[in-house]
Amino acid sequence: MHNFDFLNPTKLIFGKDTIGRIGEEIKSGGARKVLLIAGGGSIKKNGVYDQTVASLKDIGIEWVETWGVKPNPVLSKVREMIDLAKKEKVDAILAVGGGSVIDSGKAVATGMCIDDVWQAFEARDQLVEKAMPVYSVLTISATGTEMDQYAVLTNEEENKKWNIAGPALYPKVSIVDPSVQTTLPWDQTVNGALDAMSHIMEYYFIGGRSETTLALDESLFRTIVQMTDELKSKPDDYESRANLAWAATLALNGTSGAGQGGGDWASHGIEHGISALNPEVAHGAGLGVVFPAWITYCQDANPAFFKRWAKNIWDAESVEDGVSAMKAKLKEWGAPTTLAELGVKRPQIRDIAVNTVEFGLTGAVKQLTEDDIVNLLSLASPE
Amino acid sequence: MHNFDFLNPTKLIFGKDTIGRIGEEIKSGGARKVLLIAGGGSIKKNGVYDQTVASLKDIGIEWVETWGVKPNPVLSKVREMIDLAKKEKVDAILAVGGGSVIDSGKAVATGMCIDDVWQAFEARDQLVEKAMPVYSVLTISATGTEMDQYAVLTNEEENKKWNIAGPALYPKVSIVDPSVQTTLPWDQTVNGALDAMSHIMEYYFIGGRSETTLALDESLFRTIVQMTDELKSKPDDYESRANLAWAATLALNGTSGAGQGGGDWASHGIEHGISALNPEVAHGAGLGVVFPAWITYCQDANPAFFKRWAKNIWDAESVEDGVSAMKAKLKEWGAPTTLAELGVKRPQIRDIAVNTVEFGLTGAVKQLTEDDIVNLLSLASPE
Repeated sequence: MHNFDFLNPTKLIFGKDTIGRIGEEIKSGGARKVLLIAGGGSIKKNGVYDQTVASLKDIGIEWVETWGVKPNPVLSKVREMIDLAKKEKVDAILAVGGGSVIDSGKAVATGMCIDDVWQAFEARDQLVEKAMPVYSVLTISATGTEMDQYAVLTNEEENKKWNIAGPALYPKVSIVDPSVQTTLPWDQTVNGALDAMSHIMEYYFIGGRSETTLALDESLFRTIVQMTDELKSKPDDYESRANLAWAATLALNGTSGAGQGGGDWASHGIEHGISALNPEVAHGAGLGVVFPAWITYCQDANPAFFKRWAKNIWDAESVEDGVSAMKAKLKEWGAPTTLAELGVKRPQIRDIAVNTVEFGLTGAVKQLTEDDIVNLLSLASPE
Repeated sequence: MHNFDFLNPTKLIFGKDTIGRIGEEIKSGGARKVLLIAGGGSIKKNGVYDQTVASLKDIGIEWVETWGVKPNPVLSKVREMIDLAKKEKVDAILAVGGGSVIDSGKAVATGMCIDDVWQAFEARDQLVEKAMPVYSVLTISATGTEMDQYAVLTNEEENKKWNIAGPALYPKVSIVDPSVQTTLPWDQTVNGALDAMSHIMEYYFIGGRSETTLALDESLFRTIVQMTDELKSKPDDYESRANLAWAATLALNGTSGAGQGGGDWASHGIEHGISALNPEVAHGAGLGVVFPAWITYCQDANPAFFKRWAKNIWDAESVEDGVSAMKAKLKEWGAPTTLAELGVKRPQIRDIAVNTVEFGLTGAVKQLTEDDIVNLLSLASPE
């Protein structure tokens, strides 16, 4: 077990009819005017917007709105929002939406404290220590951003989908009301589950003797699969939504990786390479394609833990059978299992590998070169 | 799944050779002089004291020491320490020891902000919102107090072993170096495991549809049993100590109870009744006797989850078989399984029941009357 510090300062408010608490939380945090960041408008249909602004109004928090954050959020939009936040002299960010919206909010918050926001992304290993306070109301459980210190953004001019990290990026308060997710499209539910499953695997396959964490990770992984199965037949079941939501938060709030000494983020890096070049690819869907290939390619680097995963998650006797079981589950869920199904063509594989290694991420279980990534992705692209 | 807020502000520093960080943490928290609270002297033998004061010295934190906190810590000692803290004008508490020492530290911290510390215990449902900052260096993983908002204290004049709770009681920083626990006596290791197992059960048997939490609880429980088994043959194995330590922290830092809407603390209450009247009874040992009896007595109140526990923890087909398996495990570990083995005589059962209900704790899975407690404890006292 590696040494670790555990400190997660986010206050997570979880459950039905909790969105109305956002105003009082912002007020008690000392902010008077917020930049309300949102996506394409789904929050107007599911009531989240109305509940949020009613809460702000009731307690006298001013806000200015900015809409149009897209999946795989882009730098130009973040810059535009930073300009607005400065002009409007807000003193906190309120992100209302899924991972893209909240990550954009974190990027805006970072950009409020430095000359140019992309500097923070180029600085890579330098932690973000200063940012405007971020509040969030989550509408899709997936990335864990509601209770973590990470944000991912695409610099669309340079085709870089990169991330920042640091203690200043933990939201002050995040509200997760799973009942607003009962109307999510099925593919978004699945993509969220795949993202959370990936976060767990990225810590799990480090292996080692952190039995407490490994067993906990297995329980989270199995629960996510079980809840997604339940939602396939009953998408509006509150309890299944709630359990999936809480498991997705735990998958990246520090709990799932305690004692692992970090994770292996190569699969995330490769997926970022894919969606940097193909912005229409949803992050979770991309991970669903990359991960089985990554497991197949890397299994010899830590065989005991890949076998353990196959056995304890899929009740399979070999890694190969475990991967097959995972792919079968993805097909059952209607998720892509090949690059072609993602809309990515085989000749692009080299470009994806080049793009991935540019960020410098090469893996911890197995260090991956550009050629490794080409070979790995070829497994996800049967001829 | 019940609604919940999750906010645990304690910074937990976990791992080998971490005690030397306590000075810098106290300094960055703004304190200049601390009351160093300790127990009977074991920290002088295992090097914890030397590491702690070296760290304080290095960074220029003043301290004044007070020794002699005992298991089942008492009010008179806490009052004495409060007087000393006031006289010495300390601005933080540094508790170095096991649960009794840290709980005493929390009580002292509370007492620094009110007229008389016992008022906070008499106030029961009133949360402690104000206390002096508490720092801790943990030497026995058991109670979870290093990362929770609770403290238990015995008013020895009135035979009341009661608790306080509140956000001000989270330690600012706690250091858990599992390597200092490799020299713990075996019975203390077992008592720690039993305390942690009890905390998990107290949330688990509430049941409901919090699958994420229930599955996680099962993984924690199984890991604690497994690690304790490993320590029986290799007491100095760092990895087993570390996993047991982290599982014990997770058992009461909010993770194991998320979505349960609270726990059923009747077993803890009954054990407090036992050790209020028998201060020589170790808390964990008492719980090991009470819990199997509690399960047997209460199983019909929530049968599906008692059966699930028997199956998923002990691979047993009935609750009866699960309880037998747990008792067999306790015997294997050398832990008491009857009141007689605790040194508690059968005629005292009524007094224990009276003492327990005086605090008002009656249970959530099943509400227990004084007579219920008598009947339940009789199960732990075969004639």
